[in-house]
Amino acid sequence: MKAGILMGSKNDYTVVKRTEEVLDSFGVEYTTRIISAHRTPAAADAFAKGAEGDGIEVIICAAGKAAHLAGVIAANTPLPVIALPIKSSTMDGLDSLLSMVQMPKGIPVACVAIDGAENAGLLAVQIMGGKHQGLREAMRAYKTRMEQDIMEEDQKFQKEK
Amino acid sequence: MKAGILMGSKNDYTVVKRTEEVLDSFGVEYTTRIISAHRTPAAADAFAKGAEGDGIEVIICAAGKAAHLAGVIAANTPLPVIALPIKSSTMDGLDSLLSMVQMPKGIPVACVAIDGAENAGLLAVQIMGGKHQGLREAMRAYKTRMEQDIMEEDQKFQKEK
Amino acid sequence: MKAGILMGSKNDYTVVKRTEEVLDSFGVEYTTRIISAHRTPAAADAFAKGAEGDGIEVIICAAGKAAHLAGVIAANTPLPVIALPIKSSTMDGLDSLLSMVQMPKGIPVACVAIDGAENAGLLAVQIMGGKHQGLREAMRAYKTRMEQDIMEEDQKFQKEK
Amino acid sequence: MKAGILMGSKNDYTVVKRTEEVLDSFGVEYTTRIISAHRTPAAADAFAKGAEGDGIEVIICAAGKAAHLAGVIAANTPLPVIALPIKSSTMDGLDSLLSMVQMPKGIPVACVAIDGAENAGLLAVQIMGGKHQGLREAMRAYKTRMEQDIMEEDQKFQKEK
Amino acid sequence: MKAGILMGSKNDYTVVKRTEEVLDSFGVEYTTRIISAHRTPAAADAFAKGAEGDGIEVIICAAGKAAHLAGVIAANTPLPVIALPIKSSTMDGLDSLLSMVQMPKGIPVACVAIDGAENAGLLAVQIMGGKHQGLREAMRAYKTRMEQDIMEEDQKFQKEK
Amino acid sequence: MKAGILMGSKNDYTVVKRTEEVLDSFGVEYTTRIISAHRTPAAADAFAKGAEGDGIEVIICAAGKAAHLAGVIAANTPLPVIALPIKSSTMDGLDSLLSMVQMPKGIPVACVAIDGAENAGLLAVQIMGGKHQGLREAMRAYKTRMEQDIMEEDQKFQKEK
Amino acid sequence: MKAGILMGSKNDYTVVKRTEEVLDSFGVEYTTRIISAHRTPAAADAFAKGAEGDGIEVIICAAGKAAHLAGVIAANTPLPVIALPIKSSTMDGLDSLLSMVQMPKGIPVACVAIDGAENAGLLAVQIMGGKHQGLREAMRAYKTRMEQDIMEEDQKFQKEK
Amino acid sequence: MKAGILMGSKNDYTVVKRTEEVLDSFGVEYTTRIISAHRTPAAADAFAKGAEGDGIEVIICAAGKAAHLAGVIAANTPLPVIALPIKSSTMDGLDSLLSMVQMPKGIPVACVAIDGAENAGLLAVQIMGGKHQGLREAMRAYKTRMEQDIMEEDQKFQKEK
Repeated sequence: MKAGILMGSKNDYTVVKRTEEVLDSFGVEYTTRIISAHRTPAAADAFAKGAEGDGIEVIICAAGKAAHLAGVIAANTPLPVIALPIKSSTMDGLDSLLSMVQMPKGIPVACVAIDGAENAGLLAVQIMGGKHQGLREAMRAYKTRMEQDIMEEDQKFQKEK
Repeated sequence: MKAGILMGSKNDYTVVKRTEEVLDSFGVEYTTRIISAHRTPAAADAFAKGAEGDGIEVIICAAGKAAHLAGVIAANTPLPVIALPIKSSTMDGLDSLLSMVQMPKGIPVACVAIDGAENAGLLAVQIMGGKHQGLREAMRAYKTRMEQDIMEEDQKFQKEK
Repeated sequence: MKAGILMGSKNDYTVVKRTEEVLDSFGVEYTTRIISAHRTPAAADAFAKGAEGDGIEVIICAAGKAAHLAGVIAANTPLPVIALPIKSSTMDGLDSLLSMVQMPKGIPVACVAIDGAENAGLLAVQIMGGKHQGLREAMRAYKTRMEQDIMEEDQKFQKEK
Repeated sequence: MKAGILMGSKNDYTVVKRTEEVLDSFGVEYTTRIISAHRTPAAADAFAKGAEGDGIEVIICAAGKAAHLAGVIAANTPLPVIALPIKSSTMDGLDSLLSMVQMPKGIPVACVAIDGAENAGLLAVQIMGGKHQGLREAMRAYKTRMEQDIMEEDQKFQKEK
Repeated sequence: MKAGILMGSKNDYTVVKRTEEVLDSFGVEYTTRIISAHRTPAAADAFAKGAEGDGIEVIICAAGKAAHLAGVIAANTPLPVIALPIKSSTMDGLDSLLSMVQMPKGIPVACVAIDGAENAGLLAVQIMGGKHQGLREAMRAYKTRMEQDIMEEDQKFQKEK
Repeated sequence: MKAGILMGSKNDYTVVKRTEEVLDSFGVEYTTRIISAHRTPAAADAFAKGAEGDGIEVIICAAGKAAHLAGVIAANTPLPVIALPIKSSTMDGLDSLLSMVQMPKGIPVACVAIDGAENAGLLAVQIMGGKHQGLREAMRAYKTRMEQDIMEEDQKFQKEK
Repeated sequence: MKAGILMGSKNDYTVVKRTEEVLDSFGVEYTTRIISAHRTPAAADAFAKGAEGDGIEVIICAAGKAAHLAGVIAANTPLPVIALPIKSSTMDGLDSLLSMVQMPKGIPVACVAIDGAENAGLLAVQIMGGKHQGLREAMRAYKTRMEQDIMEEDQKFQKEK
Repeated sequence: MKAGILMGSKNDYTVVKRTEEVLDSFGVEYTTRIISAHRTPAAADAFAKGAEGDGIEVIICAAGKAAHLAGVIAANTPLPVIALPIKSSTMDGLDSLLSMVQMPKGIPVACVAIDGAENAGLLAVQIMGGKHQGLREAMRAYKTRMEQDIMEEDQKFQKEK
């Protein structure tokens, strides 16, 4: 079980790293690439077309501003594509979000929150869980653990007051 | 292979119907339910917790305004949840979009465009394609057909001028 | 007289603390809990259903991003619910605000300003004032004091110039 | 038990009427007035200052554009004030919403959704329920009935398909 | 010739100070007051009603968030009122701007840019120039000087390169 | 006493007409011109420079989209300039509003609400009232009449119910 | 002298037609194609790479929603690319605008207004005017004619009043 | 081959400098001027009218807030005008963007991203490439180099992991 992670610029890695950490924690293999829809269109094309053959099951695309990466990849693969909009120096991420989520009819992408790197990873795990029952169980366990963590945090908070 | 479709109000069915048509065209079974995160919270809870056991592989949630349906369902299932924001009478769908896509860390949803009903269906097909290779092939064929349709439309347009 | 304060994440406490201070100054008792609509849905459910029985008269819910906490609580109690949208790292609080204030027909919440923690507390006092006449008097006194403070500040400002 | 309903312009009555219907259905008495923060400031002042004495327990203020009505009323009464932002011909209600919900520290209002007239009424009932236990019971019944209605609608929808 | 300057909070003085400096440079007298539409409504009312009698010709109102100050003052005086929206900690000033500029029919205010303190002062000078021909001449001179300053800055910039 | 009214396109006259009606009702003379900052820059320049000499005391500029008219006129006259942003077919007037109200330091315009034609006229009257005491009295009378009209409307509304 | 016009969907032709009319009026040849960045990526790629060889000097790309067409074309040609954002059924064109104008560093597009079809044509003429002096003269004449038209419209408007 | 660069304020030079660096790297000559549509309207007019005669082929206009510079220049020249919206202290650049990109019919400008200084330069090179074949070749080389740089960065990134 393997995911592809693309980022439009190396700067996006500070965010994307958290996606990798999530995948690591679930034991999901991944390839992370710097590929830009605009600056390396041929590489984007090649990656998208080869992904399925390379054993990739889900592709996560992180990009900012007029963020076309997810759409361009989705245009060239039947695999599910997760869009991770990155906040840049202007517009507070709204441009990245709308450029990704508002995909026209025919070519969907699965968009998560602006800078929502962990959720991009978790969504990939949920999607791959369809084929890999182990991931489904792991996801269930993750949710239970998260619930317990917060409940403990709550109890600790009650006591400290 | 089976999807669950939830809508927060019966009014949403004019949009959601197009999701059903897409699933029909791929031969994917589905259950469509009117379930509201706010007005029928117990039904929402029951559906989410029972979905996996009922053989559902992906859940599509359509809702408008402060659209909590997808998040509330996602909180109670390890299945992937697709969020379909519905445009209501004010705010041009921005409220529905942000209420769905901006999910906090830990509970992702896969958001598509405002009123992007077809894409919600196609994304469900792409996600289920991980387990059902036939759907992957069907998706590939769909993309090829769509490409040919537009190319023919283009050629016809050239001739007519 | 007692209020319930819920926050979706412990990080929200830097803001929520100011709500507590307001309630303290009016002598209103409160319970503050870390409860997340998405990560601890069962706890949210339990709290909402038990609140009235626990003597709580108003519930204040603070959350950020796709902030469903207030709506999810309001779905499960006949008590008035105050929504306090928290500004997060993107979108300047607009996502939290719209996710809270734009509640669909049937399940209202009483929304205050983004990060408007003091006002959440004051609104709770005003609401509880319906039953507790002493709070109504205290609110009247608070407003008079605030008016006098600003008038003194104004006079001091005139003199210093 | 009595509510005050103010609207900044007679045009707002097409929306406000639905607030009245909700209050009627709960047996809550009300006075509806056309009072403008800008055009009849003296009447607004007089109403706010006299409301408590007139037996009013909650004030609902409906206004559009730079909607100051709720804030101006809240400045002059210790009663809870519900703000109902009305969508006007430009800005899709965003101006009304922000003018109402973003109240500065010290003078809260309880804001509902743009054109959320029913919710303004329901919130008034929830607030008055603190003093009038009968309203609390009625609210609980209302929620149960709403839940049942949607569940029946859902069942009917399932059958018709 | 005299202007009134009101600010909703002492914090606004860091911005408002620049309005005073502009008025000083034109030799226009002014009174600066801390008056809040919400926290000192009686003072606001008194100021507005007394302004004309006090020899004030233009009133400048600086306020943030749901900024009602300018509208509330304009409701109670036939004098022209300049609205200066102040950027607060959320919403980047959009709430202040819309709360001020979108005044309903009948009660206009003259809105300048968010934090546009100098322009509020200059606009006051332009308005008072109708009665005081000397101010008109001074404004003309100001514009010429500003033009020359920028042209010199441009020439210096050319040389330095 | 005379105002200048400029509109960027003849289409704007459906809105601008209401400004004229207000000025008519106050007995203020005016010249209305179709002048575009972009399409007739020389005419705009000539108008701005000649306005004061032509006895014009205030200039009202109505324009839509990237609405530069008010700024361009203000750059070339010491007279006060009122900006009336016109809503066009996209962006709900936000583009017109921001293009007008956000003027940089040095060249203010007095912006009213989107499509706020009556208020543009009333503001012109308030500004000219500095020189023409009769207009100030007329404005006071206008406000009283408006107040009475709404109070009567309110009384009629009470009776009809 | 020849332009390429691409539109992402045949529906865009109602807008794009006005671009053609402008080019016709300047005697500029053009090819109009239905090509989608997402649905016919190979055709988009081929067009972009072949455009220069086909004698095309400027490419105009019209698209709506998450409008990637201009960026994808610009990635594959050294020719200037004009982006024409098309307003779709939600978001009032803001999604199309931001998806086009906010292009990241390295691959510019020349964006015009939402639905600004005539301006896309005129900008193409201005750009081609660098090589074809006749177009520059024609543009100068166009501007003079436009100025005269509006001046005549203004004079007619003055007379009719 | 020569470009004109205008900036509305010297402060904009920190951004505009990057435009100059791009032009330098392509060997394109340029003149950079501080010219304000509002504060030095005569200089703006003179520059626009003289630009073509001075051998300038493209004009780049950088400005913030209600950014009229590009429109005002475009009104007075048949040359293509590139608009570079500068982010100022409020509104995150949205005001600058809309003031520039939303130009009304008849006078287009070619808008790039907020603070997109490099792209303004690259677009100028693409436009001038119509006449200067060398620039077209240089642009092609630039794109190839950029592609290679990112591919190398990608390879380096792969190795380091």
